[in-house]
Amino acid sequence: MKQKKSFKPCDLVIFGVLGDLSTRKLLLCLYQLDKANLLEPDTKIIGVGRKEGGTEILVNAANTCLDNFLKHPRDNEVWQRFSARMTYVKIDLNNPEEYKQLNAVVDKENRTMINYFSVPPSLFTSICTGLSVSGALTPESRMVMEKPIGYDLASSKEINDAVAKVFTGNQVCRIDHYLGKETVLNLLALRFGNSIFTTNWDHNAIDHIQITVAEDLGIEGRWGYFDKSGQTRDMVQNHLLQILTFIAMEPPVSLDAENIHYEKIKVLKDLRLITPENVHEKTVRGQYAKGEIKGQPVVGYREEEGANTTSDTETFVALRVDIDNWRWAGVPFYMRSGKRLPAKQSEIIIQFKTLPHNIFKESFEELPANKLRIRLQPDEGVEIEMMNKVPGIDENIQIQGTKLDLSFSEAFKNSHVFDAYERLLLEAMRGNSTLFISREEIEQAWTWIDGMQDSWAATNSVPDSYASGTWGPQAAEDLLTRDGRAWDTV
Amino acid sequence: MKQKKSFKPCDLVIFGVLGDLSTRKLLLCLYQLDKANLLEPDTKIIGVGRKEGGTEILVNAANTCLDNFLKHPRDNEVWQRFSARMTYVKIDLNNPEEYKQLNAVVDKENRTMINYFSVPPSLFTSICTGLSVSGALTPESRMVMEKPIGYDLASSKEINDAVAKVFTGNQVCRIDHYLGKETVLNLLALRFGNSIFTTNWDHNAIDHIQITVAEDLGIEGRWGYFDKSGQTRDMVQNHLLQILTFIAMEPPVSLDAENIHYEKIKVLKDLRLITPENVHEKTVRGQYAKGEIKGQPVVGYREEEGANTTSDTETFVALRVDIDNWRWAGVPFYMRSGKRLPAKQSEIIIQFKTLPHNIFKESFEELPANKLRIRLQPDEGVEIEMMNKVPGIDENIQIQGTKLDLSFSEAFKNSHVFDAYERLLLEAMRGNSTLFISREEIEQAWTWIDGMQDSWAATNSVPDSYASGTWGPQAAEDLLTRDGRAWDTV
Repeated sequence: MKQKKSFKPCDLVIFGVLGDLSTRKLLLCLYQLDKANLLEPDTKIIGVGRKEGGTEILVNAANTCLDNFLKHPRDNEVWQRFSARMTYVKIDLNNPEEYKQLNAVVDKENRTMINYFSVPPSLFTSICTGLSVSGALTPESRMVMEKPIGYDLASSKEINDAVAKVFTGNQVCRIDHYLGKETVLNLLALRFGNSIFTTNWDHNAIDHIQITVAEDLGIEGRWGYFDKSGQTRDMVQNHLLQILTFIAMEPPVSLDAENIHYEKIKVLKDLRLITPENVHEKTVRGQYAKGEIKGQPVVGYREEEGANTTSDTETFVALRVDIDNWRWAGVPFYMRSGKRLPAKQSEIIIQFKTLPHNIFKESFEELPANKLRIRLQPDEGVEIEMMNKVPGIDENIQIQGTKLDLSFSEAFKNSHVFDAYERLLLEAMRGNSTLFISREEIEQAWTWIDGMQDSWAATNSVPDSYASGTWGPQAAEDLLTRDGRAWDTV
Repeated sequence: MKQKKSFKPCDLVIFGVLGDLSTRKLLLCLYQLDKANLLEPDTKIIGVGRKEGGTEILVNAANTCLDNFLKHPRDNEVWQRFSARMTYVKIDLNNPEEYKQLNAVVDKENRTMINYFSVPPSLFTSICTGLSVSGALTPESRMVMEKPIGYDLASSKEINDAVAKVFTGNQVCRIDHYLGKETVLNLLALRFGNSIFTTNWDHNAIDHIQITVAEDLGIEGRWGYFDKSGQTRDMVQNHLLQILTFIAMEPPVSLDAENIHYEKIKVLKDLRLITPENVHEKTVRGQYAKGEIKGQPVVGYREEEGANTTSDTETFVALRVDIDNWRWAGVPFYMRSGKRLPAKQSEIIIQFKTLPHNIFKESFEELPANKLRIRLQPDEGVEIEMMNKVPGIDENIQIQGTKLDLSFSEAFKNSHVFDAYERLLLEAMRGNSTLFISREEIEQAWTWIDGMQDSWAATNSVPDSYASGTWGPQAAEDLLTRDGRAWDTV
């Protein structure tokens, strides 16, 4: 292993530092990075908010954040160091002149300015203008943003165009926190570091792939926001398609951002379009009705607080996605994501083909195929289901399916699993864009999603109702049954 | 899983019941089978020896055997049942008339007669004649024999011809105890039950294979016997070639004996012949000199008790074996076996090819290839060496080799591992020949071994000396170094 490189310290500026994401997640992650000695000694944390006050506002917010969310006792030495990094600046984001205050706290010579836009996209143009006017930026400065990056291709372009006036290329860090997950990154090691998988990663060896991102929660007070987008825009356009690209991309020339992005874009371009002709066959939309989650009764989507009782927004979507290239011809990617499903559970199933001939009929009339299961939530892990001889001296050789944990060998079992945001914040400070999403990817994904949304509109699609606490409407089961397959539900 | 079938009980007749194999191994294994309820209630054990006496001779021998070798407390109920199965019969093996005594103890109607020939091959003809004269045999009767089945093709044919006058086809159970090992049998499950291995089991995916059968012991008082054969005849002709066939055979149509034997014979026929022209390049012979084993000084082969001080018999052999067929073209099988090596250790290494391109140069200048390691001794197990991402948020994605145990999942970890002889005795009683070796296999193996022996003779080959406690002569290392490879020594 190589030695850790040392980086230029950063001025990490968080816009919206008193908002939800910051006070639940970002401040906690920064504390953890500090504790792990991963922040440069001179790195500063600059919080920007609209509330009047001094740095104590930020320190208090961080204090409350740790009180609420830190799972182990606070290390006071780390806390002293961490809180000493902080400066709070009150800025009216719509007033460009006020951004000049940043010049007093950032150090262009010695620190890289990282601007985390933890505010709604409607404010992005103002912040970009303000930063531009302030004179605090350098060509090394970066900005960080995350979903929603638009509502469709057109609105996504607007946001990206606004940002592009000030930040270009790798200056822009588009976060999808699924790409910060240990097991998603381990996919790269499994796929491109092991010949036994490399040689088995195509239509010759793989029957189909499943990607499930299930939530048991409902709308949680976000009805107004959610109802405008729906599950497809909110989850599929970003998280599920990003996971898909990691599974499906061709071997990249290197792990450099440019090469990884290039391969991911190729996959997105190869997605077979959803059209009014195939939309019924390839997609299922659902909307949760009342039901039970873990024994507790819950209301339906249209009965949630603030709901429009005639909404046709989907809270569940299941898709059969085809990738029209050499590697994946004939290998469907089944994806589903929904709210009010039985459990918070995200996983990827690589279902290998069954063997052409079965010599173990004494054990199995039909031999189960190998299966690689990549668990993302609630816990992360990778396991393979394979066949082994049952130890013993039974008549005939008996075999049995066994599950092998591929991810956490003895060597790794005491490793701390870093949170996805910790990883991605650090990568932004390091200036490594491999795990961020390029503009072209975002736009390519929206192009495909727009085709699906348009097809639903053109065919007057209405989501099927499903009871809360079930795996979505019956049509989602039928989507696989038609193909002689079934969802792998644990 | 299917229900256990019930078998016809047996008359298990052990010729040479007071000999070494029987009193160290067979009686112990039969006790274990009885304890595991794997002997039919009416199965009898009939010991044949040349010593005068009644059944108490056999019971005493079994008693001593358990006292010496049983690793856990004896179960008295099992011992009562087990010893009650025994009958001792004193027979002069060269007097056919005396075999008629067997008629008094066997039950042709209700039990299958299994004759275990635990005596030197020189007595086989007499026993066959005697059994034939006795009238105790039926077409269902079987005989069991094991190595040495000859010294070369001609002497092997003599033995097989003598036996064939009385026992034919599947009536003959030729034992190689390596084929009773759990992990060797698991090779069938791994190879033919898992598509991830099935698709990777040829010259496209595998770089080479290593088979090591190492002993730390020396001659142990068998100098006279051993010096006539040498390590090649004693170990390679049977154990190593049998392991090789399990690794190399084409997928059999079924696990039936006929189909398995057919595929194994095909492999043996495809072994590239060793000739006087290639013998120097393909083979290394060694003979141990004095040295140290586990810190204790030991004498050389020619200084052992009873040694001929000018013997040129090899106690070590290393080979590069090529299999000239489609699957294995260009994939060498390196085999080595020897005495007075550093440890008792038998293992198979399936070395997969390195990946064509390395995107993990930050972790490894050269990416280690996947490796499947099948351990046969001292403990049994199967593990795969593969690459995983190192958990954590290092700069760049760091990967690391990890070892995964493929054989003993949680489901199996409390299973008793049966001894190879227990398994093979049971298979003989069940009449399942899959794990026994056909006459054609034995003869094909001898044909190949004879070619090597003849080539050594024709080139006046003399074994290289190696110090006891080392991994054989330098030439054995060179055999792989020449090919840019190295022995995998733990």
